[in-house]
Amino acid sequence: MRQLRIVFEPYGRRVEVDEGESILEAAKRASIGLRSECGGMGLCGRCRVIVENPEAVTPPTDAERRLLTPEELERGVRLACQTRVLGELFVSIPPESRVEAQRIEVKGLRRVVELEPMIWKLHMKLEKPKLGDRRGDLERLLEALGGDVEVDWEAVKGLPEALRRGDWEATATLWGSTLIAVEPGDTTKTIYGLAVDIGTSKVVVQIVDLSTGEVVSTGAVENPQAIHGEDIMARMTYAMESPGNLEELQRLAAEGVNEALKEALSRVTIDGDSIYEAVVACNTAIHHLFLGLDPRRLAVSPFTPVVRRGFNAKAKDLGLNINPGARVYTPPVVAGFVGADAVADVIATGLHEAEELSLLIDVGTNTEVVLGDGEELWASSCASGPAFEGAHIKDGMRAVRGAIERIWIDEDLEVRYKTIGDVKPLGLCGSAVIDAVAEMLRRGILNPHGRITAEGRRIKPGPPAEFIIALRDETATGREITLTERDVNEIQLAKAAIYTASKILMKRMGVEPSDIRLLYIAGAFGSYLNPENAKEIGMIPDVPSDRIRVVGNTAVEGARLMLLSKRLRDEAERVAEEMKYVELSNDPDFLTLYPRALYLGRFT
Amino acid sequence: MRQLRIVFEPYGRRVEVDEGESILEAAKRASIGLRSECGGMGLCGRCRVIVENPEAVTPPTDAERRLLTPEELERGVRLACQTRVLGELFVSIPPESRVEAQRIEVKGLRRVVELEPMIWKLHMKLEKPKLGDRRGDLERLLEALGGDVEVDWEAVKGLPEALRRGDWEATATLWGSTLIAVEPGDTTKTIYGLAVDIGTSKVVVQIVDLSTGEVVSTGAVENPQAIHGEDIMARMTYAMESPGNLEELQRLAAEGVNEALKEALSRVTIDGDSIYEAVVACNTAIHHLFLGLDPRRLAVSPFTPVVRRGFNAKAKDLGLNINPGARVYTPPVVAGFVGADAVADVIATGLHEAEELSLLIDVGTNTEVVLGDGEELWASSCASGPAFEGAHIKDGMRAVRGAIERIWIDEDLEVRYKTIGDVKPLGLCGSAVIDAVAEMLRRGILNPHGRITAEGRRIKPGPPAEFIIALRDETATGREITLTERDVNEIQLAKAAIYTASKILMKRMGVEPSDIRLLYIAGAFGSYLNPENAKEIGMIPDVPSDRIRVVGNTAVEGARLMLLSKRLRDEAERVAEEMKYVELSNDPDFLTLYPRALYLGRFT
Repeated sequence: MRQLRIVFEPYGRRVEVDEGESILEAAKRASIGLRSECGGMGLCGRCRVIVENPEAVTPPTDAERRLLTPEELERGVRLACQTRVLGELFVSIPPESRVEAQRIEVKGLRRVVELEPMIWKLHMKLEKPKLGDRRGDLERLLEALGGDVEVDWEAVKGLPEALRRGDWEATATLWGSTLIAVEPGDTTKTIYGLAVDIGTSKVVVQIVDLSTGEVVSTGAVENPQAIHGEDIMARMTYAMESPGNLEELQRLAAEGVNEALKEALSRVTIDGDSIYEAVVACNTAIHHLFLGLDPRRLAVSPFTPVVRRGFNAKAKDLGLNINPGARVYTPPVVAGFVGADAVADVIATGLHEAEELSLLIDVGTNTEVVLGDGEELWASSCASGPAFEGAHIKDGMRAVRGAIERIWIDEDLEVRYKTIGDVKPLGLCGSAVIDAVAEMLRRGILNPHGRITAEGRRIKPGPPAEFIIALRDETATGREITLTERDVNEIQLAKAAIYTASKILMKRMGVEPSDIRLLYIAGAFGSYLNPENAKEIGMIPDVPSDRIRVVGNTAVEGARLMLLSKRLRDEAERVAEEMKYVELSNDPDFLTLYPRALYLGRFT
Repeated sequence: MRQLRIVFEPYGRRVEVDEGESILEAAKRASIGLRSECGGMGLCGRCRVIVENPEAVTPPTDAERRLLTPEELERGVRLACQTRVLGELFVSIPPESRVEAQRIEVKGLRRVVELEPMIWKLHMKLEKPKLGDRRGDLERLLEALGGDVEVDWEAVKGLPEALRRGDWEATATLWGSTLIAVEPGDTTKTIYGLAVDIGTSKVVVQIVDLSTGEVVSTGAVENPQAIHGEDIMARMTYAMESPGNLEELQRLAAEGVNEALKEALSRVTIDGDSIYEAVVACNTAIHHLFLGLDPRRLAVSPFTPVVRRGFNAKAKDLGLNINPGARVYTPPVVAGFVGADAVADVIATGLHEAEELSLLIDVGTNTEVVLGDGEELWASSCASGPAFEGAHIKDGMRAVRGAIERIWIDEDLEVRYKTIGDVKPLGLCGSAVIDAVAEMLRRGILNPHGRITAEGRRIKPGPPAEFIIALRDETATGREITLTERDVNEIQLAKAAIYTASKILMKRMGVEPSDIRLLYIAGAFGSYLNPENAKEIGMIPDVPSDRIRVVGNTAVEGARLMLLSKRLRDEAERVAEEMKYVELSNDPDFLTLYPRALYLGRFT
């Protein structure tokens, strides 16, 4: 095959191409951010380039003659998607064709992302129909749009009304090269997407402005699937019992997204119809349930998912209350127990491009752990239970107003605490439970086995023994708030699972905790966590505090980034393919490491 | 643009191409029937050609390297869809790559059609999943399928079950390059489509074997939309009253197709899931109602349809009970009153390619009239009412067992008749009504104004006067069967509309009835019609009988042909664009010609 060379100016970047390849493909290969809203269909006319030596390319196509003036063609202006390389070539990229790199801020991180969403809009002024003009409404619109697009039935249904209400000014919304909606007037500024994280316990959504990349509103609700089991195995078992059950869990997942969306919409003056795409990150089991796919083979060898790669479905088919023509993208999953959420975590943090050894722990009811050094990328997940969300803890509660979020224990074993909203306390949220365990350990109230060994006015002998955090007269309920030995045991089980997952990944890569240069603590709960105390109890490796980044919900942030960038979806595909994984329960080291990890104390 | 020449052997056909065009595109332009089931996606590997001078084409692509052996590539075998022309070229088409032209029989006609349906199947044997193989079910299938296909959510839902039930042998069904279904085992022989004619009064379906082109079963029911009006204007008015009404009419149209399909399925051992595409011909108003599109602008100037060109929707979205991934194609419409049914009529008869002046009259509650001579093509339609279906006629009935279908009146005014099933008569079907009017005219019982002027034992003086066709003791009901002057008037109104439509088209083309060389009488009712009697009453032009072809339901036959051939869909698109049309009620000649056409008698 004949290889040719293109030089891209003003970058001076050279790239080898096959004869007959398009300039757009070549630019993509050279990682040059060339705008192309229609994805190379010759529709949007954004990928203008200037060809310095026209004899080295194919002649202008119909699309180019439609979108470029004769003067422009004369000057060598061409559409990169339409122009194929026939010889050694010099191409200039004018400023207006360059994709703008946007700094997308993820809490504690900044990833530079080129804004290239799948969704784009085109505002058009159409001729009014008159007698003798045989075009239908759709033909009129498509002619103005130019080129060959797929047309959704949903886009056509509202078409006559939309065109006439806008007095023949209208805005077409396209997903790649598919027409999915038509609205009256100029609505090009109203273009939103939905980033979604369906966690085992919680559904979080962000409404994202696709023209700026910014989050304009958020919402969160409990995952309604929980009525069929707190943990994911229970839900899978329920889904396997009958196709009706699977459908119900699908519907419940969609309902969760719809409820969270309703909350997010209530805070802004945006209509759900202005949301044209959703990107949904979740673990593999929830991914299957959300897509209505039978999850039964995820749980048994050889652990085969139905769909591994990124998948596009229609929002309507899945029951999401956004634009009737909207699409839903689910990023690729890695394996039965390493899901699209782990991939989203990586995309949000850029862990696959890490320049030094980095560990990510996305704490939740299921915890994802990813370890990478830019060369290798390893992942695992573990069931860490809902203790960090305040469940299964005697006086546990969610991190809402009235929850104790921070705890300090003085040398005399007296307790100071801070509640959310600075009101009288109602209970303990996850971060306070970890604080309590860590401080009790420091003060010798707890031994490394999780037994309360001290005595004093704050200690109620058991079994189970209890440590009083808030006295009866301090609380909003008039009942004391305590931490029991049983609560401590819950935390031990959860933190041991997380630590074991991290440890086994480190073992696979042949590294030690002390080698870790960056430790990301992710997850909604993670935001409240005091990392020093998480180290104190042996939940995370004992690395210096300046190496720790608390980064919030990276799953939903990764979903947002993929909503904004087609390129990041390709990147996610590569991440999912290259990521190595460990199935914890099957790992020979698990049985040795897990019991040790149950001890309370720093692990270096 | 550089023009190059390709010579296709063994045809010796030369065609000019633009540099960079694919051999497949060039072959299409040269009207060479080259197989291409995937539509040029490099998936099916059917478009093999032999390039005699390899230096004049682009090098082999990945798809070619996957689908061709190194030996074949060495010999110059290439895939036409993948190979682009760079210089003067000689290409041989081997026999296995040629599309077979099938003789598709339409009653009274034979069109030669190349079998090229949109739907195709591929049988595959897959590797079983094993530990360490990270592919999901979908990835496994797509790799075996090769190339980049779109994947329907519906196809994925049943995937795990299908692959395992067939022990990793499976058949993929594709609509063009979209995966729409996966079935266990080898089901390549089970591949059906549905040809549909939704008439104003009747819904007719044919189950068509897409591998042979043959009709394997048929079904017909009354159009359930009729509960909201016998004529199409009443239904449009109902639809305009509220979006709910429009939805209801959409649902009723789908219900009609489903009922007719159920009847057709009851006669064969075929499952509805084996039907992967439907092609639906109907007039423009029903086209809009069936697609759920607002029809209000069809009826008012400038008579703009929502969609004019051929349109693809999902069977599931429209509520058709065929394969969940199936598609529905509606052929293009011409104008508000000349629909996809007229286009289907033309496709079935090949009227657009007529070598001599040809007139087609598709008789129904709405009657389509098309006139063409191979140069010009003119169409119109008229509301001819349900009289020919036996409605609005005192003793009228459908053409079912017990209906009188033929009538002769002797010189002594005595009557002979034939009933369907040769049983005692129940009533008169449409053809008998026309026979009766014609014979009464011949025998001087009726005058040209439609008045009964004779006397005798068969005549009951009115008003309205009646002619007794079957005496009380001859009938199954014990009541006499008569034709009233009012019945005759109904027939006059209907036949005058049809004749006026024909006449105005002739006037537009500047021809006379005597110039007509071929007269097609189409429509389910047309099959029973005695053309001599239709001429006698002035319903059709008085042309010699050897020029008349009674061709049955050409709308459903045209739908069948488009189901079988992508190329005919393109042809339909051209027909719809080029067809001229006359809106009868707006035509200045109508008011002169219609009253004259009310007379009973031969029109030459």
